[in-house]
Order: sequence, then C-alpha cells, then structure tokens
Amino acid sequence: MAINMVANHAIRAREDDIIFGLSARANEAIAKYGKENVINSTIGTLLDDDGKLVAFESVYSELQNMNPADIAAYAGLAGIPAFLDAVVKACFMDHRPEGFIRAVATPGGTGAIKNAVVNYTNPGDTFFTASSYWPAYTTIAAENGRNFDTFNLFNEKGTFDFESYKEKFVYYLEKQKRVLAVINTPAHNPTGYTVSDEEWDMIIDLAKEYAAKDPDYRISILVDMAYIDFAGEGDTRTFMEKFGNLPENIMGLFAYSASKGYTMYGLRNGALICVTSNEDLATEFYYSCAHSNRGNWSNGTKGAMQVIANIFADEEKYAKCEEERTKYRKLLATRGAAFMQGVKEVDLPITNYCGGFFVSVLANDPTALCEKLIEKNVFTVPLAEGIRVAICAMKESDCRRLPAIIKEAMNELGM
Amino acid sequence: MAINMVANHAIRAREDDIIFGLSARANEAIAKYGKENVINSTIGTLLDDDGKLVAFESVYSELQNMNPADIAAYAGLAGIPAFLDAVVKACFMDHRPEGFIRAVATPGGTGAIKNAVVNYTNPGDTFFTASSYWPAYTTIAAENGRNFDTFNLFNEKGTFDFESYKEKFVYYLEKQKRVLAVINTPAHNPTGYTVSDEEWDMIIDLAKEYAAKDPDYRISILVDMAYIDFAGEGDTRTFMEKFGNLPENIMGLFAYSASKGYTMYGLRNGALICVTSNEDLATEFYYSCAHSNRGNWSNGTKGAMQVIANIFADEEKYAKCEEERTKYRKLLATRGAAFMQGVKEVDLPITNYCGGFFVSVLANDPTALCEKLIEKNVFTVPLAEGIRVAICAMKESDCRRLPAIIKEAMNELGM
Repeated sequence: MAINMVANHAIRAREDDIIFGLSARANEAIAKYGKENVINSTIGTLLDDDGKLVAFESVYSELQNMNPADIAAYAGLAGIPAFLDAVVKACFMDHRPEGFIRAVATPGGTGAIKNAVVNYTNPGDTFFTASSYWPAYTTIAAENGRNFDTFNLFNEKGTFDFESYKEKFVYYLEKQKRVLAVINTPAHNPTGYTVSDEEWDMIIDLAKEYAAKDPDYRISILVDMAYIDFAGEGDTRTFMEKFGNLPENIMGLFAYSASKGYTMYGLRNGALICVTSNEDLATEFYYSCAHSNRGNWSNGTKGAMQVIANIFADEEKYAKCEEERTKYRKLLATRGAAFMQGVKEVDLPITNYCGGFFVSVLANDPTALCEKLIEKNVFTVPLAEGIRVAICAMKESDCRRLPAIIKEAMNELGM
Repeated sequence: MAINMVANHAIRAREDDIIFGLSARANEAIAKYGKENVINSTIGTLLDDDGKLVAFESVYSELQNMNPADIAAYAGLAGIPAFLDAVVKACFMDHRPEGFIRAVATPGGTGAIKNAVVNYTNPGDTFFTASSYWPAYTTIAAENGRNFDTFNLFNEKGTFDFESYKEKFVYYLEKQKRVLAVINTPAHNPTGYTVSDEEWDMIIDLAKEYAAKDPDYRISILVDMAYIDFAGEGDTRTFMEKFGNLPENIMGLFAYSASKGYTMYGLRNGALICVTSNEDLATEFYYSCAHSNRGNWSNGTKGAMQVIANIFADEEKYAKCEEERTKYRKLLATRGAAFMQGVKEVDLPITNYCGGFFVSVLANDPTALCEKLIEKNVFTVPLAEGIRVAICAMKESDCRRLPAIIKEAMNELGM
C-alpha cells in the first residue's frame, strides 16, 4: 500500500527537470556521433565557441585571490553593505530612478522573485506574467501558496500586447486590491523580446491611473531583469527612470541576478531592489525582505557579494569586467545575427527576438518537433507554443545553419 | 499618513539582528579600550586565539584552485550527485542507519530546516523544539505560515525533560495527525547540551509506540545537527543508527550544515537528508525537496558542493581536513574546560554543557546582566532565561576568567 509522509500540498510530480534530461541525451549523442555532428541548444548558460562555460577572469581571479576568511564569514541577513551599494549601481547604471532605493541580497534572481511574491501578495493571491514564461514562476507560486496567471505576450504586430496586460492588471487589482505584475525584460526568456520604452510608458501610465482611483490599491511591478547585461548593444536601462517619482502606492521592484552579467550562476548571488517615493516604504521593504531571508535561507553567498563589491570599488577591475562582458555580449550578438540570417532565408516562424540568450520558434506540436530534431542530432527545449533555441550555447556556424534544419524538420512533419 | 505596501502578514519589526548590534558595540569598545581589555563573546563562528575567523586551508585551497567554470556552473536543483553522496557520508560517518537514505542540497542548515518544515507539516500546523532555542526557528515558522511551540529542555536533574517532550509530541500528533519534532543535538545552541543515547531511545520508542497506534499518524523527527563536528571528543553519531528500520510512518530527517564542520558559513552549503524504511517515501522526499528548492532559491552553491565532493573523493584531502578539524575541536574543548574550571570556582549557575560553541548562564534578568557586563567590556547575548557565552569566539585565557566576571556582575546586581 502506497503511503505519503509529506503533507498533501507537498506531494510533487516525480519528474526530473526536462532540460536536464534533454541535455543528458545531447551529451550521449555527442559521445556517439562526435561534437561536430550534434547541436546542443538546451543549455541556459553562456558557452564559448568550444562549448565551455564562460567564467569571467575578472570575477574568478577576485574570488580565488580573496582571503579565505572573507569567503567563510557570514554575510549578515540583508547582505554586506558594500555589496548592497554596488548591486544598486549594477542594476541601474546610468538610469537610477528618482526615489528611495533599498536592496536586500538574495540567492540569485529566484530568491529575489520569491521575496517579491511572498511579501507583496497575500496567500492565495494571483500574480501574473507574460504567456511565454520561465517555468520556475509556477513553482514559486506553488511553493508559496500563490496562484499564477498570464497575459498574452504578443499582439498581432508581434509587440507587447498591452490590452491583454491591462485586462489582467485591472482584473486582479480590482479583485485583490493589490496586484503584482512580473515583467521579464529586457531579452525575455524564452523569446528574447524587450519591452520598448513606449510600451513601458503605457504600463506605468496604467499603474498611475489606477493608483489614483483608490489610495488603498497596492500596485507592485516586478522587473525580472535576469538577462539585462546580454540584451544587445543599445542602452537597455532607460526605462528604469520611469520608476522615479511615482505615487506611493506603486512599488517598483527589480529582481537582480549576478548569474549572467557576472557569470555567477552557481554562486547564487542576486538582490531584490525597491524603488519608491516614500522612504518609509523602502524601510518596510528592507525589514520584510531581511525577515524572508532569515526564515528561508538565512543569508547569501558572502564571497560572491564581496567580488561584486570589489569590482565596483576599483576602476581598473570594473573596466576589466566590463571589457570581458562586452566581448561576450558582442559574441552573442554575432550568434543572434547569424541565426536571424538563417531564419530569414528559410522564413522560419519565430517570435519577436530583440536580444539575449534565447529565441522562440513557433510550432503547433512542440514535442513532435523536438523529437524530430533529435533524429537530426539537434537538441532544443519544447515550450507551450513552440521550441526554445539557446543562442547562448551554440557557436556562430551552428546558429547560422540551425534555422534550415528546423525548417526541414517542420516540413517533414507537415507543419 | 503611514501606509504599507507589503501584505499584512509581511509587516515585520523594524529591528536589526540583536547579535549584530551587540557585536558592533563590542568592536567600538575594542577600538576605544584595546583588544586585550574587551571580551566579545557574541560571535557564533569559530575564531582562533587572535580573534580571526577559522577558515580551513583544506577547504579553501580546494575552492581557490578549482577551475572557475566548475564554480560558475549551476549545480542542478537537488545538488550535484557527488556532493549528495559525500554529504550522506559527512552526516552519518560510521553510523549510517539502515534504511533508504536520500539527500537534497540546501543553502546551509537553515534551508534544510525550512524544507523539512514546509514539506512535513501543513500550513497552520505547529512544530516544536526545546525551550531554549535558536531564534531563527520562530522566523522560519512565521515566514512559512506555521506555528511554533517548545517543550521544557531540562528536567530537575539537568538532563533531557522527556516528560515535557512527550506531552508536546502526543498533543500535536493527536491534534494534527502529524508531528514534526525538531531536536538540536549534539552540542545544542545555546546550551551545549547533547541528548544521550538513552534519551534517544526514549524519543524513538515514543515515536514507535504512537506509529503503531494509528497507521495514519505521520511522525517526523528532524535532527538539527549544525554543531555535530565540534561536539566534543566522544563519538557523537551513535544515536543515528537508531533511525534504522523504523515503521514507515516515522521519517528521520537530518539538517546537515557545512557551515561549522567545514568552515563554510558564508558559502551557504548544507543538505536535508532523510532516513526511511520505505524506498518510495525516500523518492517522495527527494521530489518534494527539489520542488522546494526550485520554488525558493533554485539551487545551491556549486563550488562549495564540489569542495565537499573532492575532499571525500581523495584520502589525502580528507585526512588533511580531518586533521584541521581535530585541531580546532581540541582547541574548543580546551576553551570549554577552562570556562568550566572558572564556573566551578565561582559556582556560576549554568545549564548542562556537554560541548560545542555555546554555554548558557542562567540569570533572571538577562538584559540587565548583559548591560552590566558591557560596563565591564564583556559582550554576551541575552536569552529568555539567561545569557549565551560563545566559547567558540574567545581565547582560553578569556574563557578562564569570564565566569568570575559574570559572577561579579551578578553579585553587583544582587542576583
């Protein structure tokens, strides 16, 4: 007789991460057919052209030359002060919004999103994001007793479907008296879409309109900016200034992750940062998030925080890190351009790619397409409405030839 | 007009960690009066006789010589397999219980306790531990919508108050149909008490008695073993074997922390480990905890996991680490003996200290005693029923003279 020991809410599907499984199959294929004959486009980290994970020398020389006691010590619940200063700079750069800004360290972007969800919604509330989304959002909702919903990401022009966003925003705000909208931009995972400054104006104007309707409304907008430092060559932070001088019942929240921008995935380093026009609400944010830290994971990775602090405290170190990041951002852009060239040639149906690690290819039977591609030794990740291609993990020549391979697979499937 | 932006449940006291504040005051005193004239007994990490944090060379040479890409990569949701194997060895050593054992990596012991609480109790349930306790348990309860209660730790003989434990155990099991008892041993924080093997027999027998009464009862015993590797010279793991071959509705859970035993406080490395006689329940444990990881902090610190894996994979590295730990365990024992010598001389009222980082001194006005000690440039931490002295942070000569200073302060206060 099967019994359970965990509480009913904690009985979970017994399945391993789908990406992990696909990646393992890709590695088997590489062992069998050779590296040159397999495309592993499942991995969500930046790899160099030899398929090796990129780890910035400017980051790891700092960590590996640090006094061990500085790595071994506790960071304090909210994070070390020098990191908290540095991460606000790393977040906003030249586009710091006007207002009161506080940061609390978290284990990566995930911890930041968790802290936003548990503190800025009530148990049983629904938070929402775009229809094409990072699946961990649903896990965060399930683990923390929240519900999850989506608005339609793209309108018929392939840009931000503001009408759909507005519908969900108004629905949940009126129902819950508070709302948490999660916007993953720039270089959205999994489409690579970047919300434009004009679209941000609409999002902010809507928040202001409703903030004025009822002073008891509580509006929180969480920007999941995990991919910002690889979002293309343009200035992708201008929108941040729009969070300045807003009504006090609008809270701007930024989930900052050092995973991508500082190649610190496995060091679990990030922060949740607030922007508010009311100093008291910034203080409230700080103590709520510090409490969440202590009641879940205690504190963050001290050595990783110290590295970021050291880089921002030294012009030469900062310049070196910036140089490395620019080099790899350009590499990624080259891969993206090569992929888009291939897309154009075979007229592959993709969503609006602006930059970043991933591109979404539209397909009505994603699983069938993935399996057909595996027959061709190409490994991608199935989504609800297509497949995810990881530009970040493929060399330029593979990016260039992949669209034709996908198109061929679609043709074979009669898609 | 003051408003709140966080949800009502998330409004928290605006106070910083009391230990942090006391430690800051101690550092001010050191700057003013000199290191030799101040005793800072607030710190919960192992310091050497010069007041420097101990960071094992065997641990940090491994981390700092590692290929950066091995630190930068994600660890996978449950942790890297080599770590999960190693941490089970690190947990049980020569006393592995018979049964099905699985481990899931967590950020330190806190993450392990959090995962046990959220998966093995229902929202609104009460979990309980001893009356003298690490305050973060209440934070974990508050953050995760659980209630918290305590049994009386010491009976009149100064040993484990089993009757009080039994009362809470039976009360919550009958009320909730499931119970989670948290036992912080060996070398309990803040008293240094170690539950004896005979006391463990009573705890386990009680669980078995009730497990047989109703097959629908769900009994989970969580051992918070944060201080096990500094719990004295005897074999402190023999009790672990008692978790073997238990009825399937008793789950043994071990919150393993690498913070103290491997001087990895700031690296946030630990695991929750289960022991069950039913393989299916070990699998259930694994997927529930992996889900909790993904929905809260995603995954753990890869480099720290790799260090533990490497140490356990290499006899020479293991021996070197063991040698360092033994050296410092002996140092700690010397300090403990010096403190106890002083206690004996002045007949200071303390609770039953068996080993570890802390000793509790009984006092009916802890705050007054702490403040009186601060006048004497001695900094300790107030508890509900006394003050906590940190043997781990004081050199032997300070340990030797501290009891007389405390006694003097008590006399001055008429205690």
